[in-house]
Amino acid sequence: MKIDIITVLPELLESPLSHSIMKRAQEKGLLEVKVHLLRKWAVNQYGQVDDYQYGGGAGMVMMCEPLANAIEELQQEGAYDAIIYMTPDGKTFNQRTANMLSLKERLLIICGHYKGIDQRIRDKYVTMEISIGDFVLSGGELAAAVVIDAIGRLLPGVLNDETSALTDSFQDNLLAPPVYTRPADFMGMKIPEILLSGDPKKIEDWRYDQSVERTRQRRPDLFDEQ
Amino acid sequence: MKIDIITVLPELLESPLSHSIMKRAQEKGLLEVKVHLLRKWAVNQYGQVDDYQYGGGAGMVMMCEPLANAIEELQQEGAYDAIIYMTPDGKTFNQRTANMLSLKERLLIICGHYKGIDQRIRDKYVTMEISIGDFVLSGGELAAAVVIDAIGRLLPGVLNDETSALTDSFQDNLLAPPVYTRPADFMGMKIPEILLSGDPKKIEDWRYDQSVERTRQRRPDLFDEQ
Repeated sequence: MKIDIITVLPELLESPLSHSIMKRAQEKGLLEVKVHLLRKWAVNQYGQVDDYQYGGGAGMVMMCEPLANAIEELQQEGAYDAIIYMTPDGKTFNQRTANMLSLKERLLIICGHYKGIDQRIRDKYVTMEISIGDFVLSGGELAAAVVIDAIGRLLPGVLNDETSALTDSFQDNLLAPPVYTRPADFMGMKIPEILLSGDPKKIEDWRYDQSVERTRQRRPDLFDEQ
Repeated sequence: MKIDIITVLPELLESPLSHSIMKRAQEKGLLEVKVHLLRKWAVNQYGQVDDYQYGGGAGMVMMCEPLANAIEELQQEGAYDAIIYMTPDGKTFNQRTANMLSLKERLLIICGHYKGIDQRIRDKYVTMEISIGDFVLSGGELAAAVVIDAIGRLLPGVLNDETSALTDSFQDNLLAPPVYTRPADFMGMKIPEILLSGDPKKIEDWRYDQSVERTRQRRPDLFDEQ
């Protein structure tokens, strides 16, 4: 999978993309992420890519021309399966979208900053608008990193143990059960005895029950999505 | 505001916390973020902080002892207003939670990794469990960076123009209206004429109508939260 990112702050994306799982995914050649500095397509020698918004008000808006030129140029290397704009008013990202995107070949992600990008770029080029949640961030960079992490770990071969991702929360619309490790007694707090039973079937049943119970208590809305 | 973070992968947090708005917040002395490497409290000379999970299954679990010792030691510098664990089964983060947390003085954020932390640490120490959304990440680090960014930009004095955050999406349970900047005509795509009217009242009304309409189309569920 190839992911291009357009941003005014590439430095924000450095460490999230260069360590741990994302590093491994790229080293194994399973994921290629390229970060493109929007200023490369600035409208003048001062590197301008944003301007005041029409109608007045606080906050700058990212201009049409640099974005249009960036997208047009990057598209020449091959069509994108999706041109994604990270924005709080996009469709809320979830595991289903992560699964779907993990099957794509080429993605372009545009990170908004300031007040966002000119609406005309959204109208003309963007095919998918994603929000990672009902909150506002300084820019789309962290949101893009989140999406890439969620997608990247689903690519076959990225995680050491492929069953690991399948037992995570949300893959079956259930929250994960509680987990425990040594010691069995920590300052008087003991682990559930069943986990010491050595009976895989019983343990599996217990975990399923715990998942269902936790989902019922914390996120009953997840049951409605099935 | 002071935020301590406990993590096994501090390098993931480097760039999100050291650029742009977060850099400014820290330089101005409005926000102090300290990242603590959990291995400092490892149970042996090999730096062990995780172990296999009881009952079997893929994925390691972060052990009780290092986390308990880390929390106990960090608490000695002053009590926390909240000890937060980033986890997919936590309460879904939103702007309301961001606003609430931005009023606190001292926060501790624990980043899970692998299969998560031992349930007993959650039972004994954690006062708040936060999920940034219904998807699974490689670890809690990016999620923590998202939460800190969302909170940090709300601290008075962090954004250049304080009105800027108030007109963002979600602050009034409405999505933001579309924004435009120069040129007024980009490749035949024109901005809405009203934005050129020079009539602040009319423009404000138009923006409000656009916000309501966009929210109705994209996120009618937000109206229910009012």
